Amino acid sequence: MPSNIIDGTAIATSIRNDLGIAVEAFRNQSGISPALAVVLVGDNPASAIYVRNKERACEQAGIATETFILPDTTSAQELIHLIQKLNANDSFHGILLQLPLPPHVDANAVIAQLDPAKDVDGLHPENMGRLLTGSPYLVPCTPAGIQELLLRSGHSPNGKHVVVCGRSDIVGKPIAALLVQRNDQANATVSICHSQTPDLPHLTKQADILIAAIGKPNIITADMVKDGVVVIDVGINRIPDKTRKSGHRLVGDVDYLNVALKASAITPVPGGVGPMTIAMLLKNTLTAAREQHQGR
Amino acid sequence: MPSNIIDGTAIATSIRNDLGIAVEAFRNQSGISPALAVVLVGDNPASAIYVRNKERACEQAGIATETFILPDTTSAQELIHLIQKLNANDSFHGILLQLPLPPHVDANAVIAQLDPAKDVDGLHPENMGRLLTGSPYLVPCTPAGIQELLLRSGHSPNGKHVVVCGRSDIVGKPIAALLVQRNDQANATVSICHSQTPDLPHLTKQADILIAAIGKPNIITADMVKDGVVVIDVGINRIPDKTRKSGHRLVGDVDYLNVALKASAITPVPGGVGPMTIAMLLKNTLTAAREQHQGR
Repeated sequence: MPSNIIDGTAIATSIRNDLGIAVEAFRNQSGISPALAVVLVGDNPASAIYVRNKERACEQAGIATETFILPDTTSAQELIHLIQKLNANDSFHGILLQLPLPPHVDANAVIAQLDPAKDVDGLHPENMGRLLTGSPYLVPCTPAGIQELLLRSGHSPNGKHVVVCGRSDIVGKPIAALLVQRNDQANATVSICHSQTPDLPHLTKQADILIAAIGKPNIITADMVKDGVVVIDVGINRIPDKTRKSGHRLVGDVDYLNVALKASAITPVPGGVGPMTIAMLLKNTLTAAREQHQGR
Repeated sequence: MPSNIIDGTAIATSIRNDLGIAVEAFRNQSGISPALAVVLVGDNPASAIYVRNKERACEQAGIATETFILPDTTSAQELIHLIQKLNANDSFHGILLQLPLPPHVDANAVIAQLDPAKDVDGLHPENMGRLLTGSPYLVPCTPAGIQELLLRSGHSPNGKHVVVCGRSDIVGKPIAALLVQRNDQANATVSICHSQTPDLPHLTKQADILIAAIGKPNIITADMVKDGVVVIDVGINRIPDKTRKSGHRLVGDVDYLNVALKASAITPVPGGVGPMTIAMLLKNTLTAAREQHQGR
């Protein structure tokens, strides 16, 4: 692996090992096994893979999981009923609602029903608000993973200009909120760009740290970044590839090979942000279990 | 008044007149008089003036107010007890907790106790989170007022580069969250700068719309902006002035006279953002009364 690659898989593995030890220590001290309820609606194949990966990661870290699979036809009402039951069930410390939900269900309305204390994806308005005001409890997993990647790879955002491309609720807006805060692990000047930004390259070229979370393959090209930039590629895009058995491969939002020549550091896809998202899910589940044990 | 001045007093007056009519219509239709509880702790003279102005504005718009004055020595516990009583009291639709609180009280801990449905300052984490995710309920008053000022003065942020100087919980962070959203009244590319931004002028010079919310007199100078910029000055700073009877005068964060020569539009201090903040408080109180009436 070239020296400027930020190895998300290795960093995530190290975090997961540490979490496994912390989970065991917590269990020995409290007698409680952290447990995660996973809710999967419909039969989106990508979602099923994500859920399986999360279950496996939990298991390895000593976190129990139970997955509730509901049919595609589930109504918002039925889903909210399940969420409320899980909120009230003390044996689950975290609830993961796998997104996307079927189009007839308003995801925000369901997320708002989660007990914020069990919202290990950090997407409930109360957790988002605590993030924005700088007193975070459970931070959305992908933004939390990006911050960890930067810090652990020696690229602190402190004092840097971070340019975020994309304004989704699960990545763009929360990573901007996280990195602008007044603390040593953040303290970035943050610009947020999106589809309505008239001159995207003008801003991306100013980035000390560029976070690409747009969801379009290879949209960030080498002419759009400055020499020495640190690039975090959040995109996971499937493009046709006849040389693969599956007929496709995964690429990020960044024209990786060319941008890597100019970047001082860059995350690959896969093997960059993705593994960190799962590691942060485990971390949030342990945090939730601890807080519930302490009767927050 | 020169033609490039954004007259916050006039715009706020127009909004307050409209709100007065809307309050009356709501009362006639529902039989309910919107009512605001104001909580003032200690004897900060500036806070007392703000509270009096808010009471008067409410009265003019037909909104009832009752002000609860607590001594400087009030504990967080006692304050939270009052908040809980007001939460439970159906005759108040809004609760305004005048900031700052005495230093021995953790303001965030008290704000978290507000019923989000009555939080007319929009500072509860749930309201901040809804703002960040683009499904706002009660928006913090100063950011909401800034957006209204821009729209009503013909300077829509849509497609513009907005540079926010300052990252406070009541202005900097929420105005960034508000203006970056995907809707016609926002849609800005947003940069957030602060005390740890290494080269502030480099960013402010790029602003189509510059929002100064730092709290230092005249820190934004003419050489820091481009020709034609729209400037929103949120600062309210008291500086010595022997020519005044009071011995001081109020100035913003912007070197007004010199920046006005380059700006296509600029808000004065006083008479810019300040009056809008009060108008938005009235608007939020009416919104809260309506929502509680409809049994949200």
